[in-house]
Amino acid sequence: MKLSFTKEALLNALGIVSKAIPSKTTNPILECILFDGTGEKIKLTANDMELGIETVVEGEIEEKGKIALDAKLVYEIIRKLEGGEEAVRIESDKSFSTVISCDQAVFNIQGRDGEEFAYLPAIDKTNYICLSQFTLREVIRQTIISAAFNETNKMMSGEYIEVNEDMAKFVTLDGHRISIRNVQMKEKYGKAKVIVPGKTLTEISKIINGDNDKEVMIYFGSNQIMFEFDQTVVISRLIEGEYFKIEHMLSKDYETKITVNKTKLLNNIDRSMILIRENDHKPIILDIGKDSIKLKVKSSYGTMDAEVPCEKKGKDLMIAFNPKFLIDALRVIDDENVDIYLTNPKSPCFIRDEKESYIYLILPVNFIAG
Amino acid sequence: MKLSFTKEALLNALGIVSKAIPSKTTNPILECILFDGTGEKIKLTANDMELGIETVVEGEIEEKGKIALDAKLVYEIIRKLEGGEEAVRIESDKSFSTVISCDQAVFNIQGRDGEEFAYLPAIDKTNYICLSQFTLREVIRQTIISAAFNETNKMMSGEYIEVNEDMAKFVTLDGHRISIRNVQMKEKYGKAKVIVPGKTLTEISKIINGDNDKEVMIYFGSNQIMFEFDQTVVISRLIEGEYFKIEHMLSKDYETKITVNKTKLLNNIDRSMILIRENDHKPIILDIGKDSIKLKVKSSYGTMDAEVPCEKKGKDLMIAFNPKFLIDALRVIDDENVDIYLTNPKSPCFIRDEKESYIYLILPVNFIAG
Repeated sequence: MKLSFTKEALLNALGIVSKAIPSKTTNPILECILFDGTGEKIKLTANDMELGIETVVEGEIEEKGKIALDAKLVYEIIRKLEGGEEAVRIESDKSFSTVISCDQAVFNIQGRDGEEFAYLPAIDKTNYICLSQFTLREVIRQTIISAAFNETNKMMSGEYIEVNEDMAKFVTLDGHRISIRNVQMKEKYGKAKVIVPGKTLTEISKIINGDNDKEVMIYFGSNQIMFEFDQTVVISRLIEGEYFKIEHMLSKDYETKITVNKTKLLNNIDRSMILIRENDHKPIILDIGKDSIKLKVKSSYGTMDAEVPCEKKGKDLMIAFNPKFLIDALRVIDDENVDIYLTNPKSPCFIRDEKESYIYLILPVNFIAG
Repeated sequence: MKLSFTKEALLNALGIVSKAIPSKTTNPILECILFDGTGEKIKLTANDMELGIETVVEGEIEEKGKIALDAKLVYEIIRKLEGGEEAVRIESDKSFSTVISCDQAVFNIQGRDGEEFAYLPAIDKTNYICLSQFTLREVIRQTIISAAFNETNKMMSGEYIEVNEDMAKFVTLDGHRISIRNVQMKEKYGKAKVIVPGKTLTEISKIINGDNDKEVMIYFGSNQIMFEFDQTVVISRLIEGEYFKIEHMLSKDYETKITVNKTKLLNNIDRSMILIRENDHKPIILDIGKDSIKLKVKSSYGTMDAEVPCEKKGKDLMIAFNPKFLIDALRVIDDENVDIYLTNPKSPCFIRDEKESYIYLILPVNFIAG
């Protein structure tokens, strides 16, 4: 096999497929990227059997063939090569010995037989939706906050996607909070209900460039989901099972509604975190009065008091939260002002917009007033 | 005590004195910064008994007094305060309870009696030199590379400074290499020989801004050294003892002299590090021929071959080095081309300029050719 590339194109493609390289594995072939120059175009593939990524890279095929190369090593070598005008060349022989060269620098590393490599599975393309890269990236950013990667309940580490004609709903929850984004799509599609591993979406949001003019096709298979964009395909296993019934956790009733400047509220809560160390479950107390929210945090390090003006409808209320959960939600909301709906100190609060394009449910915590 | 500051001025001063806060200590007063508003100006001081830093900060003294506050906590609080037009206010009462406030945010933390705090010692100011901030920062950057912070020999963790009239020599060594900078000063001073803890110089190079027009006064006491610049004073203990006799390790004889483009040589050696993992003592072999240096590294990950053009005087030579030591030296040299002087595969190489403003001695390592 003999291939040549520009450094820039190859590095970019390696950056994309490397997202499917597992950080820990005992199987060395899973740490490899397949360079496939057997067809018309050069394809790079990484596949850890949960998540697989394939991308086309511009380059010359001087002699057809394929080779699997250690992902970290090849990425580091390409990154450090001179590049510029000079082409990066990758040549392997029948014993998989591989020469990577550029200008005066020549690396020789041992590759592996490309035949050992597991190709991405085929997926039925009948059930799908289409989103802009921008929308998908935003939706992931705005919901992944409450996916629980450390939980023993695997479903909590996933993101629920439900498609119903022209509406797509994205949901994560961790037992203390729920994050929901409802997306209005341009066309009507069928119906779908899947649970996608949170890790898959995190990696995808790193690869897609957030361009509003570029699209992502999302195909729903029975056990797999496929994302297709630019010259790249990402296939991930789905999490099996029935997702949590979230509908009856959501309520539109409330006793108190406040409208508050998002940045002011966020900065003040964020500031209180100075007094809270990890695993030190100190709440922030919100004392909601006539036209302001008084915030109070008390820990072994000291106390913080702050006051944020707000518009209030309904009853006064004193309620406490894990400040991190409020920060996570407020940080991903783009609106300048947010509406927060509350009922009593034991009931969840809802941060949502009029159209319910986003809904953040956060459970309160107990506190001692004073 | 009642003080007020702009956020910017206070944060800057806290950043300076925080460099003397030890990362680990069981003595809580050492983790504190003293806010001293008893005099005309507000002074902040941190002192871990090895290294002490004092700086003057612009601000208003509304009520005289002093208080010691936990450095990390107060830095985090000030950093997160709104600032802008609003002043940051620090007020403490007789029980050392301290209120830090800005705009609507009010923090209350427990301070400590300023009387507990150890002031910086006085130092005799008769023996001194004066350097520009730029020169001092460059000299530290160019020599600190071979100070050995993990060695049991405490002297190796220090930097030797020798003053002789208008020449100042800065030296570090770690048993495998020596780094020397000779600095020509504008005036003639006396004589001095001190060993300064490497950590002190590292912290100073972070504080001084590298301005060529600003000066640093360096005072040599019997057990202490003092650096005075801007509104800041840094005092450090000296390392006691007689420094290594470096003069007879240095030789001007050589069999081979090469002149080589620094960046090309550096990039090629740097690239070879991809194949070398930590604690994996693989050498880089330099095969110095008529008009080029062939570089070769071989490890369990693969091999690298590269070639860098050079001008050579004298014999051909094959010699091997720890590549990290070559990289460290080449990285801190500002010249476009460097001269390297060699004798045989068992003798040190010298990288030095004509005037010997810098000298890097690096010992070779054994290697198996082929």
